[in-house]
Amino acid sequence: MSEVEINLGSRSYRIMIGSSLLDRAGELIAGLPVGRQVLLVTNTTVGPLYAGRVAASLEGAGLTVTVAEVPDGEQYKSLASTELLYERAFSAGLDRRSAVVALGGGVVGDLAGFVAATYMRGVPFVQLPTTLLAQVDSSVGGKVAVNHPRGKNIIGAFYQPSLVIADTDTLSTLNNRELRSGLAEVIKYGIIGDEQFFTWLEQNLPQVLALKPEALAYVIEQSCSNKARVVEEDETEQGARALLNLGHTAGHAIEALAGFGRYTHGEAVAMGTAVATQLGVQLGRLTLAAADRITGLLRRAGLPTTVPAELAGADLVAAMHGDKKTVGGAITFILPVKIGQAVIHPNTAEEHISRAIVAART
Amino acid sequence: MSEVEINLGSRSYRIMIGSSLLDRAGELIAGLPVGRQVLLVTNTTVGPLYAGRVAASLEGAGLTVTVAEVPDGEQYKSLASTELLYERAFSAGLDRRSAVVALGGGVVGDLAGFVAATYMRGVPFVQLPTTLLAQVDSSVGGKVAVNHPRGKNIIGAFYQPSLVIADTDTLSTLNNRELRSGLAEVIKYGIIGDEQFFTWLEQNLPQVLALKPEALAYVIEQSCSNKARVVEEDETEQGARALLNLGHTAGHAIEALAGFGRYTHGEAVAMGTAVATQLGVQLGRLTLAAADRITGLLRRAGLPTTVPAELAGADLVAAMHGDKKTVGGAITFILPVKIGQAVIHPNTAEEHISRAIVAART
Repeated sequence: MSEVEINLGSRSYRIMIGSSLLDRAGELIAGLPVGRQVLLVTNTTVGPLYAGRVAASLEGAGLTVTVAEVPDGEQYKSLASTELLYERAFSAGLDRRSAVVALGGGVVGDLAGFVAATYMRGVPFVQLPTTLLAQVDSSVGGKVAVNHPRGKNIIGAFYQPSLVIADTDTLSTLNNRELRSGLAEVIKYGIIGDEQFFTWLEQNLPQVLALKPEALAYVIEQSCSNKARVVEEDETEQGARALLNLGHTAGHAIEALAGFGRYTHGEAVAMGTAVATQLGVQLGRLTLAAADRITGLLRRAGLPTTVPAELAGADLVAAMHGDKKTVGGAITFILPVKIGQAVIHPNTAEEHISRAIVAART
Repeated sequence: MSEVEINLGSRSYRIMIGSSLLDRAGELIAGLPVGRQVLLVTNTTVGPLYAGRVAASLEGAGLTVTVAEVPDGEQYKSLASTELLYERAFSAGLDRRSAVVALGGGVVGDLAGFVAATYMRGVPFVQLPTTLLAQVDSSVGGKVAVNHPRGKNIIGAFYQPSLVIADTDTLSTLNNRELRSGLAEVIKYGIIGDEQFFTWLEQNLPQVLALKPEALAYVIEQSCSNKARVVEEDETEQGARALLNLGHTAGHAIEALAGFGRYTHGEAVAMGTAVATQLGVQLGRLTLAAADRITGLLRRAGLPTTVPAELAGADLVAAMHGDKKTVGGAITFILPVKIGQAVIHPNTAEEHISRAIVAART
């Protein structure tokens, strides 16, 4: 088992990474300063696989568990779902010291986290992420949210968990597409801040795709450490944290335009990273060789790096204006400038964005 | 104009107190680091009185204002209202730097504050409280919330405003009952931590009830300063902040049992303070003379200090168990131990509570 410590003053916490950790959830959670009542939030896909084991572990540690299963799907990350969870929490007698535990991927984590952040003005929150994306992304950063009919994650908060337990065994039940989707964020950490990790990924990608436990644990640990360095510096996304949005400006626009669910988040981020990479080249900030390494690694991870023709450039630019990271109407891009370094590029001209999209067509 | 500074590190802010301040809202808000778009949240009672003036002031300072008026009443402090406000904010193009401004009493402040805390994971929040209760209570502490069908303020957050502007002129349009209701919280600050202020209130109550501007400004300033001292020490209510709940354990139970709306919050707190005072006497922690000064001042402020017979003791105790401040099933009371000092009394025996209620019947 390895550990990553997230240092955020009084909101610091640990991420435990390794095999067979779900069975140790009870002992680990009971060691936190929390009450006896626990609300275990999961979905109809993950619940049948792991909720019984987790509940048994929690009960074995003397905790009283209420399981709340929401349907699987991004559309259930809604205010309506929070209302049901508040009701379950209240009916079960959860008080201000009771923990909300999220067992599942990013959707479950975001939803349960928002409920934890707002139930009785905030109760302890524990994450048991079961997808690679959730383990390397949602584990660090404290972003919790639900969707609004007008857009993703429009309603949310910054709320840190008390503990994250990433059991690498759960990745064996992921389908291949979900695993590859998580790799888009993993590769991102290499691009924006860790050349050594990027090079390690170039060399060890086959071991990761083959789900070798040590390779997975290393990937999660390095990803969380990298993200932690950025988040510790900028907890509420006022500055440096924006670097984590590499690939997301165009990625969110692609997701919105293609219809949510058409591409996985990672696929959209991979295409968005390709657009940002082309923009870097065009603006003379990134060499062609570095650009090729970026798109090459994404492609070897089975991710798309070309923007399909049916997504028109003008529509994508318009969608970027609707993004919640858009401030004062200007579009901010994160530009890779070399392997291991990216910069915030505010007020990106629409003309340059359109040309980068064209360059990312093939 | 007087000012109270609330010191909470990077979340510090100022409360401006005085006459004719609504007309200066524009200049004061434009001086903050916020974007040009503003969502002005008010209700159907306060809006017609002041929203035009405030909007004119904001527009005069170069801000673009969208006014959102919610119906007047505690029942509109709901998730359903937040959905409407998120929609208004999004439609108006508010981004992450846009301010949400609350113009009204505690209900408007709580609702708008919860929206500010959660729209795009938190945007700047400015309060223009127009009731005495909101000026002396909601101005400090960062508590924002909406109600859940199962209880008041079940869904909420701790979220500090960027600025509070308390215009004492607005108190002239309050009805007498609302003004007196605010005094219950004012008197509370004297009881729990400021003997000198309590004595000042005993001597100057007539000036306050006659709405003398200097007396009102002094009351608001002293109340906010007193609350600030407690909140600065304990921002998220882990310890000392519980002292602010004097009168609220029994008060909330009285509100719930009598049906929300039967008593004002201040009336319920006054009765709850009477119960806590009787409990202090019974437990040998408070002298009869001090108890008489407490109930005497509340009574002179026109507040009820006896618990009506139709609210049965057993029912009140049961309601206290449902309060969100109840941790692990035990009932915590705040006990006055002398004028200017109170203590946290956890695990209060039901028998003692019942007897204190009986003592507060007459």
